[in-house]
Amino acid sequence: MRPRFHVPGVNPATERVEMPEDEAEHLVRVLRLGVGDEVDVFDGRGGLWRAEIVQVGKKSAAVRPIEELEPAPELEVRLNLVIGVLKGDKIDGVVRDAVMLGVSSIQPVITERSETSRAAMARSNRLARWQRIAVSSAKQCHRAVVPPIHAVAPLDWYWSEKHDAARVMCVEPSAALGDVVAVQRIRKAPATDLIIGPEGGWAVSEVAAAHDSGAILMSLGGRTLRADAVPMVAMTALLTMWGELK
Amino acid sequence: MRPRFHVPGVNPATERVEMPEDEAEHLVRVLRLGVGDEVDVFDGRGGLWRAEIVQVGKKSAAVRPIEELEPAPELEVRLNLVIGVLKGDKIDGVVRDAVMLGVSSIQPVITERSETSRAAMARSNRLARWQRIAVSSAKQCHRAVVPPIHAVAPLDWYWSEKHDAARVMCVEPSAALGDVVAVQRIRKAPATDLIIGPEGGWAVSEVAAAHDSGAILMSLGGRTLRADAVPMVAMTALLTMWGELK
Repeated sequence: MRPRFHVPGVNPATERVEMPEDEAEHLVRVLRLGVGDEVDVFDGRGGLWRAEIVQVGKKSAAVRPIEELEPAPELEVRLNLVIGVLKGDKIDGVVRDAVMLGVSSIQPVITERSETSRAAMARSNRLARWQRIAVSSAKQCHRAVVPPIHAVAPLDWYWSEKHDAARVMCVEPSAALGDVVAVQRIRKAPATDLIIGPEGGWAVSEVAAAHDSGAILMSLGGRTLRADAVPMVAMTALLTMWGELK
Repeated sequence: MRPRFHVPGVNPATERVEMPEDEAEHLVRVLRLGVGDEVDVFDGRGGLWRAEIVQVGKKSAAVRPIEELEPAPELEVRLNLVIGVLKGDKIDGVVRDAVMLGVSSIQPVITERSETSRAAMARSNRLARWQRIAVSSAKQCHRAVVPPIHAVAPLDWYWSEKHDAARVMCVEPSAALGDVVAVQRIRKAPATDLIIGPEGGWAVSEVAAAHDSGAILMSLGGRTLRADAVPMVAMTALLTMWGELK
């Protein structure tokens, strides 16, 4: 299998496209490829090409697309993850797994019980890190799409945004304010936002706001799941019911 | 919530039971509990009690069961994981997640493409490590059952064993020897062995042996999943279809 590189600007009309520096370094220094070798390049938006290396430097490389390839199939629906920021670096694994399962976008949110702040997130440059993880997971899982990861925002802002996606919030079975439904009852919609809280769960006011905004409250049952495992379990359960794991 | 300890010998008929040394150390040195404090103790086989500490030493403690408690519900069916040993310490996360999801037992196996040997596993004392992870995950997820983790065995041995569980082997869609079915078509049985391979997948002869032994070949679809994520995705998909996530 040819090694695969993320080259956002790649375009079948161009004869030559520069690779991003980190991808070029990997190509030159780790894989030790050179002019004439063939690689796969993907633009992160669904395009995938077989390409030939036409130039290499110490930290640079350029390729020429040769042939457009059929990328791995994406989900039939759009599934966006809205995730309460977790402790430490636990979002790293969530990003990696969600990209593997086919997520369309990730919106990290600060909730009442998030044990961090937007300022702390910005200082530690988390967003850039998550974006790198998304690229790396897309590569590993052969997705030609790198889902956008948005900057951390307050949950309140999210509710106030216009949206056309169905909203499904994961809650504890005991969190009942209105109906809580099992995953088997969530309909497949063209676009769904799956909203998952941090370790401490949701404040009552947050569940109320979700309910008021028309979100469906979904329970994954009585088992106790680790907060960092809930996104993968919830996504897998929905994708299974929707016939997307086939 | 009372802190929770794994005390294999606990028994409502006894007035006093010694805690295992590592659990006692945690109680004494980390949580700094003392005589008269209340804790929850579980025997790892489904029994859960409220108990009172009746003695503490430097690395010892004894408790007296006071009241039997209702443990978290177990799965309605038995789901056993037969897992090809993965590279490095990747089985650690598989054990942790499978115990969280309610697995009944775990049988690690050496397959043709496992990049390790039983001897290497024994030298590094992996089994004891996995058993500790199982206890810790059961605690974290409030299971009163600690599923047994068996010693690493060759896959050939597994096929030759008598069994009453349905056998379901996860395969690539392309691995077709006989029918490969989607997860939606796997029936809920009283007991199922879910058989998952290592990073390199199955050798053709292994899929043939599975087929000959009556195993159902199941595919999770065309997406590329990391080997260490397949057990959680496959278990979640089956449990969703079987109505166990409710």
